[in-house]
This record gives sequence, C-alpha cells and structure tokens, in this order.
Amino acid sequence: MTDNYGKFNAQEGSNSQRARWIWYPGDFEIYHALKVNTRREERNIMWPAFWRLDDCCHNVRFRKKAVFEKETRICVYANGNGYFDVDGKKYPYGEMIQLPEGEHDFLAVVFHLEGLPALYAEGADAASDSSWEANMYSDEWVQAGFNELYFDKNRTPDIFPFSYKDIVPISKERLEEGILYDFGKEIFASVLIRSSGKEGVLNIYYGESRTEALDKEHCYLYEKTDHVQEEKVFRNRAFRYILVETSNEIEVSAKEEYFPLEPVKRFQCNDDLLNRIWEISEYTFHLNSREFFLDGIKRDRWIWSGDAYQAYKINQYLYQDKDISRRTILALRGKDPVECHINTITDYSFFWIMSVYEYYLGYEDKEFLKLIYPKMKSLMEFCIGRTDAEGFIVKKCNDWIFIDWADIDKEGAVCAEQILFAKSLEAILLSAEILGIEECGYRERLEKLCRDIDTHFWDENQGAYISSFSSGKKQVTRHANIFAVLYDFADVDKKNKIIKNVIHNEQIPQIVTPYFKFFELDMMGKIGECQYVLDQIRNYWGGMVEKGATTFWETYDPGEDEKERYAMYGDPYGKSLCHAWGASPIYLLGRYFRRGC
Amino acid sequence: MTDNYGKFNAQEGSNSQRARWIWYPGDFEIYHALKVNTRREERNIMWPAFWRLDDCCHNVRFRKKAVFEKETRICVYANGNGYFDVDGKKYPYGEMIQLPEGEHDFLAVVFHLEGLPALYAEGADAASDSSWEANMYSDEWVQAGFNELYFDKNRTPDIFPFSYKDIVPISKERLEEGILYDFGKEIFASVLIRSSGKEGVLNIYYGESRTEALDKEHCYLYEKTDHVQEEKVFRNRAFRYILVETSNEIEVSAKEEYFPLEPVKRFQCNDDLLNRIWEISEYTFHLNSREFFLDGIKRDRWIWSGDAYQAYKINQYLYQDKDISRRTILALRGKDPVECHINTITDYSFFWIMSVYEYYLGYEDKEFLKLIYPKMKSLMEFCIGRTDAEGFIVKKCNDWIFIDWADIDKEGAVCAEQILFAKSLEAILLSAEILGIEECGYRERLEKLCRDIDTHFWDENQGAYISSFSSGKKQVTRHANIFAVLYDFADVDKKNKIIKNVIHNEQIPQIVTPYFKFFELDMMGKIGECQYVLDQIRNYWGGMVEKGATTFWETYDPGEDEKERYAMYGDPYGKSLCHAWGASPIYLLGRYFRRGC
Repeated sequence: MTDNYGKFNAQEGSNSQRARWIWYPGDFEIYHALKVNTRREERNIMWPAFWRLDDCCHNVRFRKKAVFEKETRICVYANGNGYFDVDGKKYPYGEMIQLPEGEHDFLAVVFHLEGLPALYAEGADAASDSSWEANMYSDEWVQAGFNELYFDKNRTPDIFPFSYKDIVPISKERLEEGILYDFGKEIFASVLIRSSGKEGVLNIYYGESRTEALDKEHCYLYEKTDHVQEEKVFRNRAFRYILVETSNEIEVSAKEEYFPLEPVKRFQCNDDLLNRIWEISEYTFHLNSREFFLDGIKRDRWIWSGDAYQAYKINQYLYQDKDISRRTILALRGKDPVECHINTITDYSFFWIMSVYEYYLGYEDKEFLKLIYPKMKSLMEFCIGRTDAEGFIVKKCNDWIFIDWADIDKEGAVCAEQILFAKSLEAILLSAEILGIEECGYRERLEKLCRDIDTHFWDENQGAYISSFSSGKKQVTRHANIFAVLYDFADVDKKNKIIKNVIHNEQIPQIVTPYFKFFELDMMGKIGECQYVLDQIRNYWGGMVEKGATTFWETYDPGEDEKERYAMYGDPYGKSLCHAWGASPIYLLGRYFRRGC
Repeated sequence: MTDNYGKFNAQEGSNSQRARWIWYPGDFEIYHALKVNTRREERNIMWPAFWRLDDCCHNVRFRKKAVFEKETRICVYANGNGYFDVDGKKYPYGEMIQLPEGEHDFLAVVFHLEGLPALYAEGADAASDSSWEANMYSDEWVQAGFNELYFDKNRTPDIFPFSYKDIVPISKERLEEGILYDFGKEIFASVLIRSSGKEGVLNIYYGESRTEALDKEHCYLYEKTDHVQEEKVFRNRAFRYILVETSNEIEVSAKEEYFPLEPVKRFQCNDDLLNRIWEISEYTFHLNSREFFLDGIKRDRWIWSGDAYQAYKINQYLYQDKDISRRTILALRGKDPVECHINTITDYSFFWIMSVYEYYLGYEDKEFLKLIYPKMKSLMEFCIGRTDAEGFIVKKCNDWIFIDWADIDKEGAVCAEQILFAKSLEAILLSAEILGIEECGYRERLEKLCRDIDTHFWDENQGAYISSFSSGKKQVTRHANIFAVLYDFADVDKKNKIIKNVIHNEQIPQIVTPYFKFFELDMMGKIGECQYVLDQIRNYWGGMVEKGATTFWETYDPGEDEKERYAMYGDPYGKSLCHAWGASPIYLLGRYFRRGC
C-alpha cells in the first residue's frame, strides 16, 4: 500500500525549517469535532450530537531549546494571546526579535478562550514544527501537534481549509409552489440568491430529491425570511434541488464547499454498471470526507465510529489519505476521562479501538500509535468497568447495544459485542507489543473471554453462535457469526459449520442494512465467495443506479415505493440519500477484485 | 454564625416557581475562572495563569418531569442553541408552548461553543430551578446548578453581574511628564478620557503609587495610542494615580466595576488606629472580592488556593457570603482528571481540601459537600500518587513545595506539607462521615502518616518539628511548628515544647510574610496570646497606615525605603499594594476580639 504522506515525512529532515502552526496534539481534531458535531439542523432546529463532546484546552504552552550558529531574527505569532519568553524575557507576539548566536530557551504561552491556541514561529532554526514540545500544564511535555494543511501564517487552524467552487443550477422550473432549481446531483453548498426587489418573502426549501424540495411542509431543510435582501447567502446545506418562493425576480447560484482529495487510482473495467457504481461511490464518499469522515452529508453530518470504521477501509482503497483517518480517530475519542461509549454505542467503542490498530497496519504510523495508546487503554478501562460478574460486556445505564438495525436478541450479554470486545483486547495487546510496552494485564482477560464466549454462546446443535444465552431463546442471526468468521474468532471447524448452518442457510434472516452488509460482504470476500459479492454489488447498488441515484443511500430496499424510499426513523425525509457507507463497493471491489472482475 | 443565604434557601419551598438560569453544576464557576485567570496583564503583555485551566462543558442537557394541574403555557430560552423536547416533540427555543394538564417529560438540549450553556424556562410548575436535572452525557443526572445572581432572563450567566459607579479624580497636577490624576484611593475601574482634538498621542500610565504612575518606563500598567479618539474607554485596571500624556485638552473620569457585598457587622472600638485598620482591611478585601476571591487587584488577579483559604476565613467575619466562597472553591478545583496541584503548589492542594470541610463547618451546606466530595477524593488520589515509598508527600515533576517565602530546608519530604496532608486526609474522612459515605480507605493512611511524622520529624533534643529529616540538617523553622499547634496536630506535651522552644524562642527566625503571619497570629490567638496578636496588628498594619496606605500591601517591612516598598519578584513595581491577605486583621479581630479589645 502506498502511503501518500511518506514523501512528506521523508522531507522532514531536509526541510525542518519550514514553519507550520503547532498546537497541543489531538486538540485540533477535538476542537473541530466540537464544531462539526453541533452543526446538524432539522427543520430550523439545531440538534447537537447526543454524547459527550470535549473541547480543546484553551491555555497551553510550547517550548524549544534552539541553537543559533549566528545572530538570528525571529518572529512569533499566536492564534490567541499570551507572550513569548526567550531566556526568561517576555515579548509580545508579532514583534521581531534579534537574538545572538548560541543556545536559547523558548517558551511560548498561548491562551485562546474561544478557539484553538496555536503558535507560528518564523526564523531559521526556530521555525515552529514538531521539534517543539507542547504542554497543557500537566507533567508531560509532548511533541507538538501540526498538520500539513497549516503552513500559512495567515491561515489559522481555527478555520478548516476547505476549497470552494461556484456552481449554477442545470435547470429551472416555474411551478405553482415556486421556482424549482435542479443542480444535477447532490451537492453541499451555500445558496446565493440575488433579488430584484426588497419586498415580500424569500423562502427556500431543500431536497435531496425533487419530491422533498416540493414538500414545503415536511422537507428536512428550509429557511424562511420575511425580508428579501439584495443578496442573501444561505448556510451550507446538502441538496440536489431547491424550491424558492418569492415574488421577486431572482438569480440563483451556489458555492460548493469541499475538501480536495485525490483518488490514488481510478477503477475501470469492461462492465459499465460497475464503472458507474464506482463513480457514484466515489462521489458519495467525497461528499462525506471533510474535516472528518461523516455519516451522511444531509443528516446527521456527525462523526460516528461504526460508520468511520468502514470509511477508513474505503479510504485505503480510494485516497489512502492517512490524515483524514487520523483526524477522525482523534475526533471520535476526545479527551479523558471517558464518560460514555463512543457515540454512546458499545460496539462503536470497540470499533474505535480496533480501528487504531488497523490504522497502524495500514500506514505503519508508529508515532500516532504511541500518541493514542493511552487513550486506547483508558477507553478499554471504561469498557471493563461495564462488564458483568462473568467478565462479559453488557449494557449499563444508557449504553446502546447496537450491532445492527435488526431483530437481535439482546438480553444480557450479547455475542456480537463479546467478539468485538475480544478483538479490541487483542488490538491493544498487539499495539502494546509494537510499542514495546509491557503486557498491560489484558492477556488473561482475553483468554478467559474467548473461552467463555465459546462455552456460553456456541451452540453445537445449531452449529452456530447464538445471540444471547441468558434469554434461553438460543436465537441465531448472521451478525455474531459473520464477526466470528470475518475476525478469525472461530476456529476452522466452527467456521465451516457457520458457513454451512448460517451463511448458506436461507432460513436465517438476511442482512438488510447496507451498514451490516459491509461486514457480510467483506466476510464473503474473505472466504472466497467473490461471485456473491459481485452479484450483490450489481443488484443492490445497481438497483439504486437504476432508480436514478446520483449518490448512494443510507438504506435501499428494491420493494419500496417512492414515499418509503425517502422515509426513515419515522420521518418522511429522514433517510440520507448520500451516506458514506453507501460507498462500500470501493472497498469491496478494491480489496477482492484488484485484478479486475 | 448567621447564614445570609438561609432565607434564600428557606424561600425555595414556597417560591419554587421563580425561574432562574440553570447550568451544569460547577460549570458556571469553571467558565468564569477561565476568563479571570487569563486577564492578567503586565506592560502590555497578557499573562495567563501557569496551571491547567479547564473550561465548562459546551454540550449539556436538562430534564424534568412536570405535572400540570391545568392547561399551561411555557416558554423556554437557551443561552446557546439546541432544542426543547416535550414528550418526544422538538421545539425551538423562545417559542410559546401550550401544554394540556397532566404529566410531561421535558428534555432541553443546549450547546454553546463559546460560552456557558444554560437554560431558562418560564411557566408555572415548569420554571427552571433546582428541581431540574443536568447531564453532560455521562451516566449521571445531577441537580442543576444555579445562582441567585441570575433570575433575570435577559441577564445571561456568561456575563458576571458587576455593579458600576462613575467616579472623578480628587486632584489633577500638571507636571513635566504629563497630567497626573489622583483618585484618592486605589480603585478598579475603566478610565474614560474625552479629548478636545484628534491629533497626537494619548498615553496613559497607571500607578498604585504616585511614584509608579510617574515612572513611565517601569510602571506595571500603561497603554499608548497614536490617535486620540474623542472618547476613549480603557480596559479595567487597578490604580490610584494615572499620568496622561497628550497635547489635547482632556476630561478624565473612571467607571468603577465592583461586586456589591455588604458587611454583616461593623467593627468599632475606642482605638482609632484599630478602627482605621479595620476600615482599610475591609476596603482592601472588597476590591479583591469579585467573581472569586483574588490575590491582588493590580497583579495577578488570579485565583490562588492559599490566598483564598485565608479569604474564606476573613469572609466569615466580614460578609459571611457563602456563595463567593463556594464559587472560589469550585473555580479553583476545575474538572477531573487532576493533572497538576492546584496552582501547581502542593500545599495549595491541601488547603483546598481543608477549605471544603471548613466551608461545611462554617455554613453547614451539606448539598455542596455532596456535590464536591468526589472532587475532594480525586484530588487526594492525585496527591497520593505523589507520595514516596514511605507514604510522605514529596515534590514530583514541576510541583511547587511552597509553604512560605522563607529559608526552609525542602530536601525530600517536608514536615509542613505532611501536616497539611494529614489534615486533608482527616478533612475527607470527616466529610465522608457527614455524608454517610463508607470509610474510603484513608483512615489507615492517616494513622500511619501521623505516626511517621512524629517518628521522622519530631526532634526531642530541640523539642520541635524539623523541616526535613533526609537532609540531616535538622533545621527548625516556625512554619511546621505553627501548623502543628494551629491544627492540633501536636499533642499537649509537644505543643508546650513547641511554644517554649520555637514560638517564644527569638533565635528562630521570625515570620516575615503577611501570608504566613496569618497562620502565626491565628495560632497565637488560639493559644490565648491575644496581646501579641494585637501588638502585631498595631505595629505591622499600623505601620502601613502610617506610610499612607489606602489599601493593605502584599508585604511590608518597616525598614524598606520607598523604592524597596514597591518592588517584588525582581520587578520595581511588582509588589501588590492591595492584596487580599492584607485584610487579615478582620479575621484576627473578629475571631479573637469579638467582645472588643
């Protein structure tokens, strides 16, 4: 696997004097995650994420011991306020400082109550980079955090450096309800309306579908103003269509906001449908790849660990952009102490732990592993605090045992959770090994857990893992069994039994959500049933293409009528029509059909 | 002791429908502490506190189950954004909601990225008060925090509700350096200058003393502007004098910012000097009693735990305002996890723990004790993490073993720290008892510590506690011995020996800082040597009065000349001339001379 950023790392030695904004490591991601997770809107109501959101630390300091071979001029800037101390003398930021040759102690104190405290130092041998250390007034000084997005002094890290593109609608239709504009495909953009007059209302209704935009009463996003302005710029929102109500002559355009990411390769085969599926997947994925990997671009635009786990895998076969994966991992985890599961979901905590180790496998970024390892451990300690007397992870307080939107028997300890728990313990043990950290006491727990899972959840009569043993129902679903095969939890004998009794058993209800279909198809690819994977891609994703999708949907059921197609969670337009996990053909085709299909 | 707020608590039952702003408990104080601790300025440089500063949580929620006996209209407001959910239906804030009689579930989601998320609900049986619960997406819902300062919907808790008073200088002097204004006594205010013209510079130099204001080069606070404005309002600063440089005709006034606090009693005796000392103490203390108890009003304006510990005691004999003590205790402690000692000082962590229990003794506020108890424990756990193999608290990393500005042998374990450690363990054990919480495992540690202190630090030959045993120097200073008597650590036999061998021994260096003089005089009062206390007040504080003090100073040495009088920390005007601990005569006179003197 190519590591895009390898060349960047390689340059470091030779180009260490290139200044960049530096901050307390992880805080950039935590700060932007707070903003991202509080931007969701639904019918003019702001709806922040329903889990604990951390903020960056607002008072930090940086230090460096610099050696100047000759007299040197330096200038230091802060995103925030404070002072720059050289050898015990304080200077304000932004002042040119002339220093004699020799050794100098730099200490930069930066606070920023409403933003991310950061530092930018110019001057040979003094430039702010990873040779500086950061501290938030705890015992430890750590290597300062930075990001290659921030080399420009005038581009402070409070603002995420998106790119912008002006676009115009491809068609306009005067209807009884108003004027309907179609932008040809789903975009994430701010609409700009120029009006001829200043009287009357200006109302705008957004739709991922034409149907939604025309449904003034129920559409998910709209904005109404009593007073037309000459030029009104609306908030960034996701849509393909907009319906505008106004009595004025108007001119409509949009400014698309996006994060530039280049695919490392293009997929091309002699099957047009597959080419089209790849293309739409790529577009869908790009719309959801921004500060972080988001779930969907209309709704929720939050960062979900299960969704992100799949996005990391898609990323490996599309952008191989390790930075967006890293940013997402840091954003999801936030700060200690851990007060709730990631996104409140037990399985999502485990996917987070597993994703760190898998990130390492993908990019061999040992520095990151070292940075994040203590947070893997503290999250694991939180999970261990949520085990029962037998050591199984269970639901406590408001924990959400998710697994999938499916009829899973969730009484007591749930099998699929235990398998993820075991994989997470293993991920930490393997990470500790890579870092040369002493056994952290989890091995015994892992071994016991594996034994206990087999004792309590393996049902030899059914030749499968059951969902729950405490309910007595002995329900078999595909979920835990897919995990058992996908993650090599089951031994060869059990694996063969599972394939026969569960995977190839039509009596066992099918996986219907594209979220879990990802795991199912990954598992099918892994056991060599590539034709099945391909058929699924052609049928399921091909079905959406046939229905005119320009981006892939959160869920798809061929039997649904148009009304049902847009509804979800009891909301007529609750379904996301541009959902990151809809892009899984990239991973599946990339991983299992690298030589074409 | 009268509890000012008793009447307020008593009203709660009968007046539960009075709405107030509510927030996550403790977050109001943490949010304002972040602002206060980053406001220090020194010669145009901003100098934030050099310890970890926490911020409030920016995404919280509130809930209440309300029962309406009839149809009711409610309206809910947020300091921030989000939504208000009634029985599963979301409403925007600020919308009048009509609800039928019966039971209703309220859930209010509030986020505020750049301020304190808070809620205000109007409507009988729905009013926001302590019957609501708050949650920051951890497992626990807790009683919402509020403060009687915030009953007004239009006065949001982001802004601290200070009072303001216009004042004019009492004299004006045209000097070669500029125009010198004297406000008669030290004030904390924003200067307003109205100018006749718009040309030339407008420079302002502040002085707690006339000397400082005239020393343009070295004064601590100044501001220079190239362009005179017609009306220029300067930032809040502490000063008695200002020197203004300008070629324009100007008119100068100031707007004093203060927090109204009423003394519960006036001190009056037939000794004019003592009356004057009380009066100046009271004024000094008032200037430093704001959002929290500050150390000094010119410099640092930070919240220091040792200073605050003395302020709580002064407060008990002046305002008996439990709220400012509570606010200060919450502000100092911040959030978990504990990453450094309070103010980085080991003794200050212990004073914080002791202050919580002493606060309870003073105000019998069991609810507060319950709220803060987990933070007493987590701070103690942090301290225990900083003990050596023998269980003594020692310096780790950048910990500051302070005790006093004095020549104390600080090698290895330091006696004075161990005594405070023991008192803190005792404070937690007593608090746990009051709360009916099971023994938290500290009793054994306390008993061992007490034995070990006596074994290692008590020197029978000198009849005193020595500062350090590991240095071998067997140094005796007054500090640990004062603590041993003041806090009843020494038994009667040892106490008598200490009084003879240390307290009444002129060979042992005297206490010279007013900070530690507080403990010394408190101890002298406690052992009945009131005449000594009175003589010290007359000499020491009387000495400052004689030198023309309008507020009491950080330190005072009768032998110092004028230049020395203003200098401290190597800075010609580094000394604070209005320092909270300078007000200790209030405590000493109040506590030991209640029937007059």
